[in-house]
Parts: sequence; C-alpha cells; structure tokens
Amino acid sequence: MVAPRHQTRSVLVGTITVGNGSPIAVQSMTNTDARDPLATLAQITRLADAGCEIVRVAIPHSDALDGFERICAESPLPVVADIHFDHRLAIEATRRGAAKLRINPGNIGATDRVDAVIDAAGEAGIPIRIGVNAGSLAEEYHDNDWPLAQKLVASAAAFCAHFESRGFQDIVVSAKASSVNATIDAYRALAETLPYPLHIGVTEAGTSFAGTVKSSVGLGVLLADGIGDTLRVSLTADPAEEVRVGWEILAALDIRRRGPELVSCPTCGRCQVDLVPIAQEVERRLRELHTPVKVAVMGCVVNGPGEARDADIGVAAGNGVGLIFRKGEPVRKVPEAEIVSALMEEIAALGES
Amino acid sequence: MVAPRHQTRSVLVGTITVGNGSPIAVQSMTNTDARDPLATLAQITRLADAGCEIVRVAIPHSDALDGFERICAESPLPVVADIHFDHRLAIEATRRGAAKLRINPGNIGATDRVDAVIDAAGEAGIPIRIGVNAGSLAEEYHDNDWPLAQKLVASAAAFCAHFESRGFQDIVVSAKASSVNATIDAYRALAETLPYPLHIGVTEAGTSFAGTVKSSVGLGVLLADGIGDTLRVSLTADPAEEVRVGWEILAALDIRRRGPELVSCPTCGRCQVDLVPIAQEVERRLRELHTPVKVAVMGCVVNGPGEARDADIGVAAGNGVGLIFRKGEPVRKVPEAEIVSALMEEIAALGES
Repeated sequence: MVAPRHQTRSVLVGTITVGNGSPIAVQSMTNTDARDPLATLAQITRLADAGCEIVRVAIPHSDALDGFERICAESPLPVVADIHFDHRLAIEATRRGAAKLRINPGNIGATDRVDAVIDAAGEAGIPIRIGVNAGSLAEEYHDNDWPLAQKLVASAAAFCAHFESRGFQDIVVSAKASSVNATIDAYRALAETLPYPLHIGVTEAGTSFAGTVKSSVGLGVLLADGIGDTLRVSLTADPAEEVRVGWEILAALDIRRRGPELVSCPTCGRCQVDLVPIAQEVERRLRELHTPVKVAVMGCVVNGPGEARDADIGVAAGNGVGLIFRKGEPVRKVPEAEIVSALMEEIAALGES
Repeated sequence: MVAPRHQTRSVLVGTITVGNGSPIAVQSMTNTDARDPLATLAQITRLADAGCEIVRVAIPHSDALDGFERICAESPLPVVADIHFDHRLAIEATRRGAAKLRINPGNIGATDRVDAVIDAAGEAGIPIRIGVNAGSLAEEYHDNDWPLAQKLVASAAAFCAHFESRGFQDIVVSAKASSVNATIDAYRALAETLPYPLHIGVTEAGTSFAGTVKSSVGLGVLLADGIGDTLRVSLTADPAEEVRVGWEILAALDIRRRGPELVSCPTCGRCQVDLVPIAQEVERRLRELHTPVKVAVMGCVVNGPGEARDADIGVAAGNGVGLIFRKGEPVRKVPEAEIVSALMEEIAALGES
C-alpha cells in the first residue's frame, strides 16, 4: 500500500501542476543540440508520444538561445531550461519562453547573480527548480564529514531560505545522488522539512539495465513513502526509454497507469509452450494501446487459471494449446500459434463491448 | 539508509544459510525439462556463473524424478524441488537429494498428505518453503472480501501453525502476488507476525522490461525496510537475467555487491562525445570482473568531475576527449576513441596496485 502523498505547495509548469497532490508528472531531458531546434523538437515529439509530460533542454551557451526560443514556441510540452554556471543564460531563458528554470544555485556564483535569476523568474511568473546534485555540491560541503544526504539537504534548504528571503516561493526542489541510499535519505529529509514539491530521481543511474534497476529501487522506495511530485529517470540511453521506465515505476505501485498491464509467468520446467516470445509479442502489441486493460499470459495450470481469472483477458497455456479467459471465464481453446492473435482479438472486443 | 534486517530463525539450504542476518541469497529457477538432466545441469552452471546461489527445479511428474536425482548429485548449487498437487513427488524428492522443498500446501490436498510431506522433510533434515501465491490460493479464500495481502498472510500463517503443530519449524515462507502493492503489504505483515526467514519476490512480474521494474520496485521497498532473507526475481526471460536483476537490486541498496559499480550520466545537450556506446561497452567489459571497483563515465563538466572524483576510476568527457581520473586525481587526457581502453587499463592497474 502506497503511503498518503506528502503535502506540498504547488507550482505550475506551463499547463502542468506539480505538487499538492497533483498527478506525479513524468519528465525527461533532450540530448540533442538546442542550436538545432528541429532535431530537438523532433525528439520532444517522440518523448511526448512515449508519455513525457515536461521536458528539459540544456542551454550550454548563448548561441543556443535562439534555438531554445523556437523550441519553446513550438514544443507540445512545457520546456524547462537547464542552466549551469552562467546566470545570464538563465535570465535570458525566462524571456525566451521557458516554462521553468532548473539551476543549481551553487554553481551560479555570487549572490547578486542568483538574485538576478530569481527576480527574472519572478517577473516571468515561472518556477525555479533548485537542483542540488551530489556531483556538483558547493565547495563549502566538499570537506566536511557529514553523510552525503545531509550535505544535499543542507545545501537545498539554504538555497530555499535564500529564495524565500527574496520573496520567491515558486520552487521545486531536487537533491540527487548516484547512490540510491543517499538519494532516499535526502528526499525523506526534504519531505519532512520543506514545503516545496519534490522532483525525484537517481542521478547518473547508469546504462539502461543498471539504471532501470537503480531508478526503480530508489524512486519505488520514495513513491511508496508518498514522496515525489514529479520524476525523472536518468539513463545513459535514449531519453524515450527514461519515460517508459518512469511510467512503469508509477504503474508498478498502481499510482498512475498509461496503458495496459501485462502479467506473465517466469516459465519453468512445467511450461509446455514457448512462452517468452508470446509474452514479448503481446507486450509489443499492447504498447500501441492506451486503455488500462489487464492481460495475463501464463504458462501452466499451477497459477495460470488464478492469474487469468484476475485479468480482463488471459491465457493459461497447456500442452501446445492456450485456454483463453475473458473476465475470469474460459471462452475458447486455441493452438499455440494462435494465442497472440486470439488474445488481441479478445482485447479488441473488450474495448468495443 | 536500509533499515536493520528483521530478526528471523535460520534454515540451511545445502551449504547456504538463509535467515538470521545471513547474506540475502539470490535464487532462480530452471526452465528446462528435469527429464533432461544434462540440459538442466548446463543451465544451472550458467545460473551459477551469473551469481545464482540456490536453484529451484520443477518436478511435474514422477518421470522427472530420476533426472532430478542426477541433477541434485551433480549440481554446483543446492537444488530446491518445486512440487504442486502430488504429495508423493514431494516425499520422493526428499529421498533423491533435494536441499529444500517448495510446496503450496493448499494444492497438496488432504491434511494427511501434507503431514506425510512434512514428516519426509523432517527425516531428510531439509527445510520446506511454504510458498503461497495469489494465483493459487486455497479455495476457502476465493470468495471472502479481504484484501489480497491479508488472504496471503492468513493462508501462510495457518500453514505455519500446522507445520509447527507437527513439530516442524524448518520453514521458509513466501507469499507472492503479481501486484507489487499486495506483495509489499503481505511481506510487511509476514515480517511482523512470523519468525521464519522470508523468500521475497513479485510473482508473474512480466517480461524482461516490465518485470525488472516491478521486481526492483517491490523488492527494493521490502529490502529497504529490512525485509527479505532470500530473493527471486521472476521474469518471462532467460533465468540468468533474473539473477543479474537480483544482484543489481541488492547492489542498488548497497546490501551486497558482486562486481563493479558503474555510474554514468544520462547525456544531455551538453554532451560532446557519443557516450551511450562508451558506457555500454564499459558495462559489458566490467561484467567479467568480480572486484568491487566503482567506475564513473560522465559526459560533461557539470557533474562529471564530482562523480569522477568519488569513483575509483572515472572519465569526464569534454569536446572529443576524456579526462581520466584515478581515486579523484586527474591522471591523463585521451581522445574519445581511446576512452574505453584507457579506463580498462586504469582499472586493471588498480587491481595490481
């Protein structure tokens, strides 16, 4: 059972509300060059198709600002400007259509520069994510012997206090580490101490395989605790993969679901059909559906009928055949080669009934 | 921070202690036919190479018993006999070398049959896993309106009480559901109420992609709570993949680690090298290492030097070049094409120093 969501303030990122119990928004970040707005917009469209709701774009240099402006104007998703080091880029981004800024105030430099960014966001009426990161903690934390999570939280809290002193509370906070445990500890402390919506993620989580596991464990623990108002899965992979993993984590905890759910068994010495390709093909075809149907693909009679009964549409395979269930009732028996098409027919019929 | 492990009794599965704070053992299950002991033993060897510590083999019919006996005799891992419906197979398995039985007493039938299995395991001195599963709950729970987790726990607790009444306490308990939330709720209740080691897993988790996410979320939440003494990841995929995911979950929470850790960034518009293939190639080569070295592959200067500093060996990429770090100190700069080989050289040198 997922714990009740932590209470937070809310901010508006374009048309998307983040915090105060709003649906947990799935984010990603483009890895194209913002100086090429067409390539970036094409990637944003792909991300939107995969279920991305907020997209972040890096502005490394001023020569990316014109591209960024066009991206904001034409993007189907709210665009967050990701800026490091140079406060002038952040100020300019607020004037070019950014729906939110993401900065790590610790690398922006002197206070008056940070203040200029805060004021520009205030004038534009857009929120700022204070994005603290274990890889770029401010100098003052490098040499003390606090646990990493404590450094991250202290750094984030100090920035929040400064923003508040400037009259700015349109804040989202993140404090990411590549250590899952440090990430969990940091966000648990942030949720206890700050009133702002939290952007959760495990940073530099790694390749598709290891990063999916680390993000699922880290974000899973936090979400089960009711922590997190928007999430990003970081993978060294196609960013659309980040979006798919993000949705799958939310679906695993029954928090949000974008499409069908597939239950399938791990196969064992009892399985008398070649189940792996059947399950994979069903998964592939279900990807095109956006209805929340539950499908069970089961290889034998031990748990098969039970799971199939609990699903909208299911199959329990026997010796070279599949018994198809609809809403728990067996409806027909088909040969192995026709299992996938029979399941898809039943799913389609379900949508029409 | 992972919570302290729940206190449990311990059982011995072959040479592996499960429970009472012992290392959380990684399990899998063969999907070969036990009537073909050579194919099954070949798969067990592959599983052992991947890090599997306990392996389960299904005995669907009596014609698999001879194969099972040979598998037990020659397996490099303790072998658990997985038996449903037919108590005679379970009794016979205790005499053919099983290191543990896994049954769901609810489908074994009359009490005297369950008792005969308990007594046979007692004579052989091997433990029994009481494996309750949402897909095969006893009839008596089908129609009441309890939450699924409560049914699973009540069923498991009733079986434990019966085993105890027979003087048998050499028990491992599992109560799996394909719902992650039901799984979490069930195991939290089991950990509170029963003194036995817990075998954790999300059943019928699905294909490699969805199943990895569901298992990582579900087992991650439980392990972070200090719950779980042995685990199995269930995937509709090659069982060696289950073992890799299991280890990755344990590594994500710093509970156990079998080999190197790779930290790598998600790439963004700031990245000036083609990082994804570099990270994938490093991950592939690291798989052959079983030393706990931490390697960082970072695409830019924002978080790159910070993460690279925190790793044993790291690279922070710039414009077509990589700056290699050893224990936080920059040691050399190499062209993009040489990043992988330079990292591997440094890792090898680390092992020698």
